[in-house]
Amino acid sequence: MKRILVTGASGLIGRHAVAALVRQGGWDIHVAARRLPELPSGDGVTAHAVDLLDPLGPTELLRRTAPSHLLHLAWTTEHGRFWRAPENLDWVAATLRLARAFAEAGGRRMVAGGTCAEYDWSAPELVDGSCHEDATPTLPHTLYGVAKDACRRMLTAFGAEAGIETAWGRIFFPFGPGEDPRRLIPSIIGNLRACIAAPCSPGTQVRDFIAGEDAGAAFAAITASGVTGAVNVGSGIPMTIAEVALTVGRAMGRPDLIHLGALPLRPDDPPRLVADVRRLTDEVGFRCGASLEQRITSMAHLRCLDVSPMSP
Amino acid sequence: MKRILVTGASGLIGRHAVAALVRQGGWDIHVAARRLPELPSGDGVTAHAVDLLDPLGPTELLRRTAPSHLLHLAWTTEHGRFWRAPENLDWVAATLRLARAFAEAGGRRMVAGGTCAEYDWSAPELVDGSCHEDATPTLPHTLYGVAKDACRRMLTAFGAEAGIETAWGRIFFPFGPGEDPRRLIPSIIGNLRACIAAPCSPGTQVRDFIAGEDAGAAFAAITASGVTGAVNVGSGIPMTIAEVALTVGRAMGRPDLIHLGALPLRPDDPPRLVADVRRLTDEVGFRCGASLEQRITSMAHLRCLDVSPMSP
Repeated sequence: MKRILVTGASGLIGRHAVAALVRQGGWDIHVAARRLPELPSGDGVTAHAVDLLDPLGPTELLRRTAPSHLLHLAWTTEHGRFWRAPENLDWVAATLRLARAFAEAGGRRMVAGGTCAEYDWSAPELVDGSCHEDATPTLPHTLYGVAKDACRRMLTAFGAEAGIETAWGRIFFPFGPGEDPRRLIPSIIGNLRACIAAPCSPGTQVRDFIAGEDAGAAFAAITASGVTGAVNVGSGIPMTIAEVALTVGRAMGRPDLIHLGALPLRPDDPPRLVADVRRLTDEVGFRCGASLEQRITSMAHLRCLDVSPMSP
Repeated sequence: MKRILVTGASGLIGRHAVAALVRQGGWDIHVAARRLPELPSGDGVTAHAVDLLDPLGPTELLRRTAPSHLLHLAWTTEHGRFWRAPENLDWVAATLRLARAFAEAGGRRMVAGGTCAEYDWSAPELVDGSCHEDATPTLPHTLYGVAKDACRRMLTAFGAEAGIETAWGRIFFPFGPGEDPRRLIPSIIGNLRACIAAPCSPGTQVRDFIAGEDAGAAFAAITASGVTGAVNVGSGIPMTIAEVALTVGRAMGRPDLIHLGALPLRPDDPPRLVADVRRLTDEVGFRCGASLEQRITSMAHLRCLDVSPMSP
């Protein structure tokens, strides 16, 4: 039986990655998070409370569990802060410590979470196209993107020296139950549940949204595959922010409350970020379990959802 | 008075950087190394014993000294091992911790040691040319090069967020008293002092050698300047390995003992690595204090030099 350690297992994507690994079967699953109650357990899942930012944290856990596989999804994700937060440096350091400890414990394959922010989102080829893992230049424009890009470079070079297979899932725009209530979809749901208007930008930006459920399952599939290198984790479906907002509005019967253009576009917001998902579909063999419209609609209909109206 | 913390202050380059800062004047100089006896002191230099790889090491020191400037030269340099050593990951983590602690302590300008191994040394433009900080692509072919490159990217992005000026000195091929006796020049000196032949490769590889004394003074000049970004730290003089070996032979009166071609060329050895030093000379305003021949000759004549004949 293969043994896997999953970090970030309580997160928007991690919780679904664990569920998908359980469904795959054949895994002895260990999950790590700072507090035990956050963690999925049962179904052959063993939970460990460990602070990955504690320099001594992961070493002892890796030695004790000696996993053959590592799925590393933990990172700082504090809404509105993570793009520029100095904690990005701490997570690079923690990721490198984790990789070192994994190698020392005899690990064989590691998969980690990257980001579409590694790409040069000002690249002219993205105007009508999509981000390709090898063809699109990587030139991150944010500290978060630089930190993820640096981790990818380091893990790839270290994996080659240590004899560890390495894959890197570049996550596009995940959403779903459990995400921060201040983010796009839950904040619109919050306003519409309170029957107040949801002020939006013109919403012309094209994005690649993917449900946390699909992104988690994609990571489980990448982990079980032999694919190495960067793999885009997106739906591959270009959708404007306006379409996303209106989909929420229609699902809740109040598209009239979606006020497009009430807020300005942010000048540094890239016009288009869409994943080329051929590697994910053809090489990994993964497909999303439902359409984006279905995923957004079922989120909007969810009774227990952490939402709150936008702050004025 | 400006206050500076220098790491790696006992190293081949660091010791000379400290001496050059003392000569510049106007600095309250603090140096850090694992063991106090390694450290230069006196002349207004305060030595601190601190293990930078200890996660708690630098934080307390930075808080206590609160330097305005940081010159970070410490790294793993174990001869024959550092190119591929997993310790490169530890030094990335240590460098990021140091930068975080420096920012929290109110630091304003940081300069760190990079490497010519960040460049794509297979780039066709290097066949007859030299490495230019911006024009030559960075594509490191070793774990050491990837680690340094990742640090540069992180420090630059973090510096931009934290309001810290950042410069990065890309060191070419340093030599001098204090270097590992197994390296090129001291190993040849060792053989010639024992009156035995020094077997060499054909020595056709072209390199940019720079004396530790000059490299240290260059770092002190970069630190005192306002120059930001990458700066090559080399002599700018292309010299074949054969010429270097024969210079040692001539300085010791035994060029006949230099046996070029007795060893094979390493297949992965890049044919040419030479620095474009215009940024160092024109923008920083630095020039080496002596010719390469003078530096090699005075090293060969040094009475107290840690040398030993090559192992057979």
